[in-house]
Amino acid sequence: MEKPDPIEAVIIDLSGVLYLDGKALPGSVEALDRLQASGLPHCFLTNTTRQTREALQQQLLELGFDIPCQQLLTAGTAAHQYVVHNQLRPHLLIHPDLEAEFSDINCHSPNCVVVGDAGDAFTYASLNAAFRILSQHPEAPLISMGSNRYFKEADGLSLDMGPFVAALEYAAERKAIVTGKPADTFFQMALDQMGVTARQTCMIGDDLENDIGGAQSLGIAGILVRTGKYRPGDENHEHITASKVTHDFACAIDWILAQ
Amino acid sequence: MEKPDPIEAVIIDLSGVLYLDGKALPGSVEALDRLQASGLPHCFLTNTTRQTREALQQQLLELGFDIPCQQLLTAGTAAHQYVVHNQLRPHLLIHPDLEAEFSDINCHSPNCVVVGDAGDAFTYASLNAAFRILSQHPEAPLISMGSNRYFKEADGLSLDMGPFVAALEYAAERKAIVTGKPADTFFQMALDQMGVTARQTCMIGDDLENDIGGAQSLGIAGILVRTGKYRPGDENHEHITASKVTHDFACAIDWILAQ
Repeated sequence: MEKPDPIEAVIIDLSGVLYLDGKALPGSVEALDRLQASGLPHCFLTNTTRQTREALQQQLLELGFDIPCQQLLTAGTAAHQYVVHNQLRPHLLIHPDLEAEFSDINCHSPNCVVVGDAGDAFTYASLNAAFRILSQHPEAPLISMGSNRYFKEADGLSLDMGPFVAALEYAAERKAIVTGKPADTFFQMALDQMGVTARQTCMIGDDLENDIGGAQSLGIAGILVRTGKYRPGDENHEHITASKVTHDFACAIDWILAQ
Repeated sequence: MEKPDPIEAVIIDLSGVLYLDGKALPGSVEALDRLQASGLPHCFLTNTTRQTREALQQQLLELGFDIPCQQLLTAGTAAHQYVVHNQLRPHLLIHPDLEAEFSDINCHSPNCVVVGDAGDAFTYASLNAAFRILSQHPEAPLISMGSNRYFKEADGLSLDMGPFVAALEYAAERKAIVTGKPADTFFQMALDQMGVTARQTCMIGDDLENDIGGAQSLGIAGILVRTGKYRPGDENHEHITASKVTHDFACAIDWILAQ
């Protein structure tokens, strides 16, 4: 077997890795301090789309994580870039708290639909409005910030944006373009920002499909942590095998820094 | 080619065939009179699940169609039968106006989810509640009254139950059991009630997939009408070819009675 390149950059998922249910996970604040002190390039890749990047940065600060805004790459930012790059006028089916992120975009006479984790803003009326645009414009792309099935809340699992995108895909008979994890383009955005290659980089995440599978499809090594949405048995998935499994984020950072 | 059996029974779809947008389609009231006078056995098969059978009968009467309740077979009735037959306790994600149809069913401690066209009752909270039952009970069946993508309203196409079922299928990683059209069991229920075989029967409908495709999969001839959700090009579908295409319900009845 070829010797892997030394790890020269790290991509990190947020929810379920650094924090869970509004609390920093044990040892994660100190582990991030150690990573920051090491000087190893790193950035954060999240499919959380219920808030702007600025609000996310503030929330992380309150949890004890001092992270520059430009290190936070969100699926919302990726969708924004996609819309700008393709000169589209989106109909937004997103969380009200994310709308500010699209304030510079012309949304009149929409020719695409952009879906985020809208939460309670997913209603029959809002989904039907999005569907009507798609049915009236057979060429209009359906753009989704992610395909996550659900996320973990204090009182149980809750529907993420993926199921609502599946509903629109079925109704409008077209496949969504995903801008967040596990899309290659989103991971590539992180590599470009850090100026590194996939082989030099590892991804730390708790979501086997979106974090580990997504990273590996581009050739980035995936470290799975046993926190957040990790479930026993993730080690034996039929298609995806993490390069390494660690107890938590702190252990993952210790292992990387010891290389 | 084998000579087809003479038509001895007729199954008829309702919305888009007899009426549309709250009005009887031209000639349909008189055509039904002619069919009733002929003595040819017939019944009505509908995936409309926003009201009880009794309310549907009343609505049809107001439009000029006098149809006995027992001739109206609805996807809601079929779901009710499925639940009773399998001794299930359903969590109902259905239209408030349909709830009376399940008033005799024990819904405590649910071990399955039943979905109808809930309309505005499809909310994030109601879909999440259904999802949580499925995620907590990996063996719980997801039962859907239909898989229709959309229906036609006066102001445009609107989402039917199918997309919401697709959302739950994706989230809970299981396939739904469909009790309405195009399920074989639903068409068989109509044949059993009339005491005829598939080869003796024809189906009149405006929905190529659910009416024509569903009927033909059981060996029932399908007559497509060019009203309701019919779209030019339905004659050239890659998998489904109607046995006959007529202008409307009146023409279909005239053709059948002339045999």
